[in-house]
Amino acid sequence: MTGSPVRPGFANGREKNAGGRPGADPGLQDGATAMFPEIHEECGVFGVLGHPEAANLVYLGLYALQHRGQESAGIASSDGERIIFHKQMGVVADIFSEDILAKLPGNLAIGHVRYSTAGTSELKNAQPFVVDFESGSIAIAHNGNLVNAQRLKNELEVQGSIFQSTMDTEVIIHLIARSRLDRIEDRIVDALSRVRGAYSLVFLTRDKLIGVRDPHGIRPLVFGKIKGGHVLCSETCALDLIEGEVLREVEPGEMIVVDEQGARFSRPFSHVPPRFCIFEHVYFARPDSIFGGSSVYQVRKRLGRQLAEECPADADIVIPVPDSGVPAALGFSEASGIPFEMGLIRNHYVGRTFIEPQQSIRHFGVKIKLNVVRDVVGGKRVVVVDDSIVRGTTGRKIMKMIRDAGAKEVHVRVSSPPTTSPCFYGIDTPLRRDLIGATHTLEEINRYLTSDSLGYMSIEGLHSCVPNEGKGYCDACFTGDYMVPLEVEDTEEQLPLFRGSVRI
Amino acid sequence: MTGSPVRPGFANGREKNAGGRPGADPGLQDGATAMFPEIHEECGVFGVLGHPEAANLVYLGLYALQHRGQESAGIASSDGERIIFHKQMGVVADIFSEDILAKLPGNLAIGHVRYSTAGTSELKNAQPFVVDFESGSIAIAHNGNLVNAQRLKNELEVQGSIFQSTMDTEVIIHLIARSRLDRIEDRIVDALSRVRGAYSLVFLTRDKLIGVRDPHGIRPLVFGKIKGGHVLCSETCALDLIEGEVLREVEPGEMIVVDEQGARFSRPFSHVPPRFCIFEHVYFARPDSIFGGSSVYQVRKRLGRQLAEECPADADIVIPVPDSGVPAALGFSEASGIPFEMGLIRNHYVGRTFIEPQQSIRHFGVKIKLNVVRDVVGGKRVVVVDDSIVRGTTGRKIMKMIRDAGAKEVHVRVSSPPTTSPCFYGIDTPLRRDLIGATHTLEEINRYLTSDSLGYMSIEGLHSCVPNEGKGYCDACFTGDYMVPLEVEDTEEQLPLFRGSVRI
Amino acid sequence: MTGSPVRPGFANGREKNAGGRPGADPGLQDGATAMFPEIHEECGVFGVLGHPEAANLVYLGLYALQHRGQESAGIASSDGERIIFHKQMGVVADIFSEDILAKLPGNLAIGHVRYSTAGTSELKNAQPFVVDFESGSIAIAHNGNLVNAQRLKNELEVQGSIFQSTMDTEVIIHLIARSRLDRIEDRIVDALSRVRGAYSLVFLTRDKLIGVRDPHGIRPLVFGKIKGGHVLCSETCALDLIEGEVLREVEPGEMIVVDEQGARFSRPFSHVPPRFCIFEHVYFARPDSIFGGSSVYQVRKRLGRQLAEECPADADIVIPVPDSGVPAALGFSEASGIPFEMGLIRNHYVGRTFIEPQQSIRHFGVKIKLNVVRDVVGGKRVVVVDDSIVRGTTGRKIMKMIRDAGAKEVHVRVSSPPTTSPCFYGIDTPLRRDLIGATHTLEEINRYLTSDSLGYMSIEGLHSCVPNEGKGYCDACFTGDYMVPLEVEDTEEQLPLFRGSVRI
Amino acid sequence: MTGSPVRPGFANGREKNAGGRPGADPGLQDGATAMFPEIHEECGVFGVLGHPEAANLVYLGLYALQHRGQESAGIASSDGERIIFHKQMGVVADIFSEDILAKLPGNLAIGHVRYSTAGTSELKNAQPFVVDFESGSIAIAHNGNLVNAQRLKNELEVQGSIFQSTMDTEVIIHLIARSRLDRIEDRIVDALSRVRGAYSLVFLTRDKLIGVRDPHGIRPLVFGKIKGGHVLCSETCALDLIEGEVLREVEPGEMIVVDEQGARFSRPFSHVPPRFCIFEHVYFARPDSIFGGSSVYQVRKRLGRQLAEECPADADIVIPVPDSGVPAALGFSEASGIPFEMGLIRNHYVGRTFIEPQQSIRHFGVKIKLNVVRDVVGGKRVVVVDDSIVRGTTGRKIMKMIRDAGAKEVHVRVSSPPTTSPCFYGIDTPLRRDLIGATHTLEEINRYLTSDSLGYMSIEGLHSCVPNEGKGYCDACFTGDYMVPLEVEDTEEQLPLFRGSVRI
Repeated sequence: MTGSPVRPGFANGREKNAGGRPGADPGLQDGATAMFPEIHEECGVFGVLGHPEAANLVYLGLYALQHRGQESAGIASSDGERIIFHKQMGVVADIFSEDILAKLPGNLAIGHVRYSTAGTSELKNAQPFVVDFESGSIAIAHNGNLVNAQRLKNELEVQGSIFQSTMDTEVIIHLIARSRLDRIEDRIVDALSRVRGAYSLVFLTRDKLIGVRDPHGIRPLVFGKIKGGHVLCSETCALDLIEGEVLREVEPGEMIVVDEQGARFSRPFSHVPPRFCIFEHVYFARPDSIFGGSSVYQVRKRLGRQLAEECPADADIVIPVPDSGVPAALGFSEASGIPFEMGLIRNHYVGRTFIEPQQSIRHFGVKIKLNVVRDVVGGKRVVVVDDSIVRGTTGRKIMKMIRDAGAKEVHVRVSSPPTTSPCFYGIDTPLRRDLIGATHTLEEINRYLTSDSLGYMSIEGLHSCVPNEGKGYCDACFTGDYMVPLEVEDTEEQLPLFRGSVRI
Repeated sequence: MTGSPVRPGFANGREKNAGGRPGADPGLQDGATAMFPEIHEECGVFGVLGHPEAANLVYLGLYALQHRGQESAGIASSDGERIIFHKQMGVVADIFSEDILAKLPGNLAIGHVRYSTAGTSELKNAQPFVVDFESGSIAIAHNGNLVNAQRLKNELEVQGSIFQSTMDTEVIIHLIARSRLDRIEDRIVDALSRVRGAYSLVFLTRDKLIGVRDPHGIRPLVFGKIKGGHVLCSETCALDLIEGEVLREVEPGEMIVVDEQGARFSRPFSHVPPRFCIFEHVYFARPDSIFGGSSVYQVRKRLGRQLAEECPADADIVIPVPDSGVPAALGFSEASGIPFEMGLIRNHYVGRTFIEPQQSIRHFGVKIKLNVVRDVVGGKRVVVVDDSIVRGTTGRKIMKMIRDAGAKEVHVRVSSPPTTSPCFYGIDTPLRRDLIGATHTLEEINRYLTSDSLGYMSIEGLHSCVPNEGKGYCDACFTGDYMVPLEVEDTEEQLPLFRGSVRI
Repeated sequence: MTGSPVRPGFANGREKNAGGRPGADPGLQDGATAMFPEIHEECGVFGVLGHPEAANLVYLGLYALQHRGQESAGIASSDGERIIFHKQMGVVADIFSEDILAKLPGNLAIGHVRYSTAGTSELKNAQPFVVDFESGSIAIAHNGNLVNAQRLKNELEVQGSIFQSTMDTEVIIHLIARSRLDRIEDRIVDALSRVRGAYSLVFLTRDKLIGVRDPHGIRPLVFGKIKGGHVLCSETCALDLIEGEVLREVEPGEMIVVDEQGARFSRPFSHVPPRFCIFEHVYFARPDSIFGGSSVYQVRKRLGRQLAEECPADADIVIPVPDSGVPAALGFSEASGIPFEMGLIRNHYVGRTFIEPQQSIRHFGVKIKLNVVRDVVGGKRVVVVDDSIVRGTTGRKIMKMIRDAGAKEVHVRVSSPPTTSPCFYGIDTPLRRDLIGATHTLEEINRYLTSDSLGYMSIEGLHSCVPNEGKGYCDACFTGDYMVPLEVEDTEEQLPLFRGSVRI
Repeated sequence: MTGSPVRPGFANGREKNAGGRPGADPGLQDGATAMFPEIHEECGVFGVLGHPEAANLVYLGLYALQHRGQESAGIASSDGERIIFHKQMGVVADIFSEDILAKLPGNLAIGHVRYSTAGTSELKNAQPFVVDFESGSIAIAHNGNLVNAQRLKNELEVQGSIFQSTMDTEVIIHLIARSRLDRIEDRIVDALSRVRGAYSLVFLTRDKLIGVRDPHGIRPLVFGKIKGGHVLCSETCALDLIEGEVLREVEPGEMIVVDEQGARFSRPFSHVPPRFCIFEHVYFARPDSIFGGSSVYQVRKRLGRQLAEECPADADIVIPVPDSGVPAALGFSEASGIPFEMGLIRNHYVGRTFIEPQQSIRHFGVKIKLNVVRDVVGGKRVVVVDDSIVRGTTGRKIMKMIRDAGAKEVHVRVSSPPTTSPCFYGIDTPLRRDLIGATHTLEEINRYLTSDSLGYMSIEGLHSCVPNEGKGYCDACFTGDYMVPLEVEDTEEQLPLFRGSVRI
């Protein structure tokens, strides 16, 4: 264990790791859940008003946002009188049948997809949340994480509120219900003025679609239109699928209220510097989405080029860890002149119910998703480009596979700086103590991965590749610079989960 | 249409209905949902503390109470730290697998079964309700109906409460959460002192099982024990199945708090006259359950004997409408000397998913459940004994079946008075305007049923057959005598359902 | 262990069993599967031609025959060109949705229900069997059991036939396919002339419905009509439900061919004495069905009266083991003058998936189905009437329940003789060694059951109660008189199951 | 309609199609089922003997072969006495739970995956086929298609065989059962000597695993080992996943018999020239599989390089149609020097139950799977590389998407020759009349696709890229050169499907 976290740069472990003999494991356990990605996006949201098949459009929109969460999904629509909703564990295509969509009438609807992890997977946390309160019914879909939810929850409970989920989103609903203002949009502003953290929200009432993005604009939210109506959604790729048109991103701190009269825009919150999550560019968002005027794909390619500048490698081929590492690897290849190859093949049939048999298949978790093309890497000096290293356990297994396939050298290049700090704004990163970048030096990580050399992107390099030269981004996961102050003492740890009952 | 509702007594329609020609339909429509019984019990509850397999016992207890509700079922257990729960649409045996029961650990647990109707069948109304509030987590299972829930809901919403169901039970939870008292039992008393109506409740906290019965004791609640622990449940038959011992009925207005130290009893509410639902004896409860010291079976037999006294018939055989009419028919046979026969056979394989084919099978609804034994009724003068007539549509179909099988005469005898008033205390009767006993004379009903004669039990006769000579019962469904005042203007109609969103 | 099987008559165990202390267990184990009845009917069949909603009618018909088998069900229909079919494990109402019925077009269809036991439950044995052969496609539904199937199967395999099930029915199909005759009805006769045993069959071809009953007429088959069409089915109760008309029973050895031209009748097999299964009257058939001109209900009542003559009891009440024991108990009550009571209440919600919890609830198996009405049996001398005793394990549990409820004496009366011999003609009785009537004396059985006395019906008494004074019945299960000779050496044991692969 | 099918080469439609205006549609309809790929591999097979968790290994092997068929899957294992099997519609991960795998004991097992199309999807055609016959039980899993199955089926039916599926595989089983030889391996050879066409088969008996490849070796079959045992499977990638070792490909016409004694090899069929399906290299096989000593990935890259030689394009970027087009596009990029980009993003969450909403989203089918990265193609001259064009409908939609995203020019390059002839050896290609390459000239296709130019690989080029310089391949789909003569008159059409009944 080291006192200072790893700094971006180079580790050349060729002597130590020659021949693929793994270094001594510096205190790390192989993760048991390697079947799932190491980082989980919290959620995706989608809302539409003004289209006769609103629920159908939400269905498609959620489908396009499925990468942002595969645990549960839900849609709520309004028929002008009541809000009708359906939500369930699972993926969009499995949850919604024609029958169910037909029961979600109306020309306004919202939806939500939520991420999947084993432990906290509960139906009661599925969204949209739909409640009845003084002014009628309201549905909410939330992407992000509040940092003062626990304190607000305690306050609300003292005042007699009850909680039926362990999601911070429920706090927002309570605050809206307790607001003494009249109009729903005023109540929402009233409520949100008390919460702090990350939120991109879409609300549905009997006759309105409302979108709000937190003052820092941490999580994305896009405003678009489709013939006859308006759309609010997490990423532009959802508009592509339904053949809608992107109008613009919702501004940090902006509220958009859409009803039959059209859309109204306001900036009800005090202005603060924008802090768009830089990790959306690095890993989360779909490459065909556009943020800040640049496609995520192009940003990732620039990251790869920059990485080649910063951490060159003397090698024969560049291969990505698919799918997210592909554009960066293409950029690395372009800048370095080292040929790009798809040396790792991804199996896309991994179902949620896949059983890990009770036998000793080594490195099983990653094998079920990835296989090496032996002919490509055999006898070669290989650069492996990935977007990030979180725990390092998956990376170590990939190294082993590549070496077993006969690679002469394996050089790991990461298109982002070391992940040293947990995210408190809506990304399910592990505790700091499980972040290999927080607890080990570059050399130690290189040894752990059994790579011949290891290179991380610098934070400056990262900034230089994203739109606006990196101004206005949250990069706390790389820097620990939490612009939205936390309310927990030990900021090294994850925000405490709400205590509460468990629905199975 | 008559001004005054039918009075118990006799209608001899032999001249008019001779030969089975149906009388003119006096303004009634055949019900479309005849597959389901005409009356639905709301719910059954079960709780246990002190048994290492608490959830398993609740499972069995709910299974024994399944007749009280087949729409949804749920179990919540406490492992000493958290409350874990599972609830779902369907019947007990289908919802709970070994896997799911294994995930409900702890030595205290409660459960709930809820009735099934097409329209209001929603997962969000399934119980137990489990919420987190200031003092921790709490689960509630409720049998009964509050009469001031809508007003309380309005008040709570004005104070900022949100509602996630359309069940009055949620009002109780909010009142508990808003109580300023400390101990959970005091909060419960505080909350319940504000509600009026029928409630038999079991609560589960981290370490306590609490049972409360409303001051009138409208719905049943039984206290029992099993080796090492205590049980609270709706009927004694649930204790039989788990080989527990009935200790006594929970007193009207009594609260029983069970924890590791044992059971504590209190009577925190002001004393009012008891009003046990007399319809539990007539129809709802299982015949092997015991209330007021008499088995329901014996009460029903007495009803049959009394009915034979009040409304004799000159006939060859007595047949029940199975299964609920069997004991009364036995009693009628005993008192009248007319032989008892099982002239109607019930098919117990009716599933929830049974499809009614698109063809003209007459009287289909009742046929799927009942068939006549032609050899038994052919050429005979038949007395048909049923426990009650609600809409009359099912009865009319049964008459037709019996006549088609060759019965010479059919005399309908009902072991309760005409049902003239809706129930506001937890039984799903139709609106007054759909109660044939409220809108038609005895002669009209007889004509509608196409029976040769029709006889209802008198209210005095009913009283004489139940324990304690009928003192301390609610018989509003027969008399309109609502001892717990309602808060709606038009007491002729059902209590308004909570408005609200709909989960599909 | 005794050399000679028990003879009908009386055992008075009052001294030995006084006070309900069970006698020493004479070598019997409590069955683990007491949740299921001890005897299983093999199957029910239904076919219709000439109705535009043929599959719907079959659905209803199978529903009415559900008591004959709950393991699997299937329907095959012909659209005039092809046979379309669907079959699945489970009960009729769960297997067939509107969607699936809509995919089964045509005006002719057949269906099948099959019994449920844990061990041999396999989809590959579900019926109708549908195969393509030289003349086209054919579907078959079979009730009964062949006694020379194993030999024929061996012969067919030597000739190169393959078997995809372990049902003897597949032998019939192979023989039809290998027949050198032209017309399908001739092929069927050709094939059936080689098999021996019990079969009531309905066949479906592209344009024909064919029914055949074996020369002895062991299993039932009824011919009826519905407007526009003809029906073949196992019991008359199925015609009642669809409002069809019973024409007559198919004669033993008769073939009925129905097509657009109408019905044609033939008796293609050599005449042998009829041997209708007497156990259909005793237990299997629905009481509202009619065989031999008598309703099953009336036969069972006569059995009860005869039983009272043969084995009187000095007692206070007569109670049946519901549901099948009800008519016999009524008859016993009538003849003896001892009042009839429903002292055992049956819970009809037992699902197929019911879990038996891992705890020590005594006599659990039977408790889940039956509960005693304590008020009825307490302090009473009780006659318990059941239709048969097979293993005796369930009976022993029932005795215990009744004694625990405070009965002073319990006298068991069985409305059939001791079951001493396995059935080889289509009823799933246990091996001879598990038939308590085959291995123990009357006194031993009485001691095992812990009853105060035990009385069985005589074979002569049984004969006197069924139609035609018992002539023309198979009563081998009571007498060992197998009129259709077996082809296995050890006739004490069950017919060998076909060896073969297992589909899970 | 043209007299001669299109020849490989160039069509320059720049004048006609400039600006993306589509040419007149030359008689083609947009396919309604564009959600599914245009070509379907029939099947994948996997067998293992000698491993204590045989069924688990088959499960993993099928998982790795899932790309070869997603309609149904099945596993059969032997416990030394009986064959136990399970098969179902759906994908491997959804069909097999731990419970089900636990019921498939033994150290030998085989499995099968089958392709998915809407129309012919029937459970009765799922494999492995398991039957009982003279010598015991046998299971078979088949990849390929027989060309004389219909004639053999007719002959077998005349001899009295019955068919329970519409798969040609059942013919093989019948021939084995009818063989007069003793040993199962001799019976298999006897049977297969009568069939003609494509077959890679694995058989399971009580104690043997047998693999056979047809004399031409049309479909792949690989022999490998795992510690303690042997494996037979369709592709090497399945051995990678289970950490087995590839020993070699099964030779055309070879039989391998594996039992406890080890593996025995024979070549029982007369030698004919090998004809390995060249389309496995072009499209079907996983890129990480190895055939003929070359990884499929490397062959596809060579195809791309060759394509760049034959059909150069003056363009800014090269993009693949993912996933299958990636290696060829990389090769094209390498050879041409035009930068490679991932301009189309594939959504991998397409479930089988995806609903196509009832609205006018243009080009919907392809949109659900693919989206364009606008930043990549906008304003660019784009080369789109795909492996084949079958109907052309999907390609037309892709062109539209790319043009809508602002591409200046779109040049289609296909890494195989025009598909002009249906496959009769196990690939589900459409009828000849639906093959755009068979019915239209190069110019017409270019116009239909709305591309600026269109280039196909030459057959010589294709040959030059696969192992052994293209010798020993079946390329009938490109050439019409059916080396295994067909038995149907109109060789322009698909082989007739077996007539027969339909299981829903």
